[in-house]
Amino acid sequence: MKVLDNRILQEGVCLTGGALKVDFFINHQIDPYLMKQISIEFIRRFADLDINKILTVEASGIAVATMLGYMMEVPVLFAKKKQPITMSSAYHTTVHSFTKQNDYEIVVSKDFLGPNDRVLFVDDFLAFGNTGCGIVELCRQAGATLLGMGFIIEKEFQHGRDALRAAGVNRIESLSIIESLDNGTIHLKTTK
Amino acid sequence: MKVLDNRILQEGVCLTGGALKVDFFINHQIDPYLMKQISIEFIRRFADLDINKILTVEASGIAVATMLGYMMEVPVLFAKKKQPITMSSAYHTTVHSFTKQNDYEIVVSKDFLGPNDRVLFVDDFLAFGNTGCGIVELCRQAGATLLGMGFIIEKEFQHGRDALRAAGVNRIESLSIIESLDNGTIHLKTTK
Repeated sequence: MKVLDNRILQEGVCLTGGALKVDFFINHQIDPYLMKQISIEFIRRFADLDINKILTVEASGIAVATMLGYMMEVPVLFAKKKQPITMSSAYHTTVHSFTKQNDYEIVVSKDFLGPNDRVLFVDDFLAFGNTGCGIVELCRQAGATLLGMGFIIEKEFQHGRDALRAAGVNRIESLSIIESLDNGTIHLKTTK
Repeated sequence: MKVLDNRILQEGVCLTGGALKVDFFINHQIDPYLMKQISIEFIRRFADLDINKILTVEASGIAVATMLGYMMEVPVLFAKKKQPITMSSAYHTTVHSFTKQNDYEIVVSKDFLGPNDRVLFVDDFLAFGNTGCGIVELCRQAGATLLGMGFIIEKEFQHGRDALRAAGVNRIESLSIIESLDNGTIHLKTTK
């Protein structure tokens, strides 16, 4: 997605350890107009799917998920990173974070995910695919149909796409794909 | 705000300890169309202010802040609940949570808040006002002008409004105001 590629090249910052900082428009400051453009592109790419719920994970995914849900007129659900004491009955699974080198839990209430849900999962980054695999597991527990996954940015060199395919996700769309961050330089894949 | 009052009465759940669960449309599942209606109401109530940035706190505030920023065509910034290792230079302050009985830090990068910012802070709940007071302190550190604060739901019996006024916030708007949750019943104040 050209407009997103340009923003990443202009404002993204390479960090050590394969991390890309996009705090200017996605992860801390949010450009809501860009979120709308991104949502429209997701709608275009997943146009053939009969989606009735947008799923994401707190916190950075919430902005794009809200905008996408608004445009598609479907509810949005965000998985929480630990089970609140107020949530009585939940599906949960453990996700390993490579960047933080720890495990954390993601949780959704049984009230909001079930067999009638045809889910599109969206998130800011696809890296190693661990969060995505956790989402596959939550949808499996709930009996929900996971129709596809959309990511704003994919770090191809961390091979999350392979992990998601192995977990049974057939439709994966990433709007900007980073081939490498070697030598502190952002190398983008040419996308449609 | 009538449509919000009705949703709270129909779908809100009283919990022990003065908590209100609105997981059906704000805190876990999000109704994005309601977020748009809420945003429009905030725009109406703050129409006289020259706002150029929306500020919120992760995670539940991000949905309404994104929609409001989109409608107003201004950037959105969400304070983080701990300083990421990737954030080099930040304003931070400590906030006490009455519900969780612990202290946590809220942080914004120095890159995104400064003397040119005329800020509207929005969040899902006004309870004791501790987060809001933390926001006042972050804006003070940054030299930003905090023009007002908007809350989806105010729990009046926890007196956060008094705390915010004492901290120097002159404009506070809450779209639904809860007078009490006594005996497991939601008592709403009649609002315009």
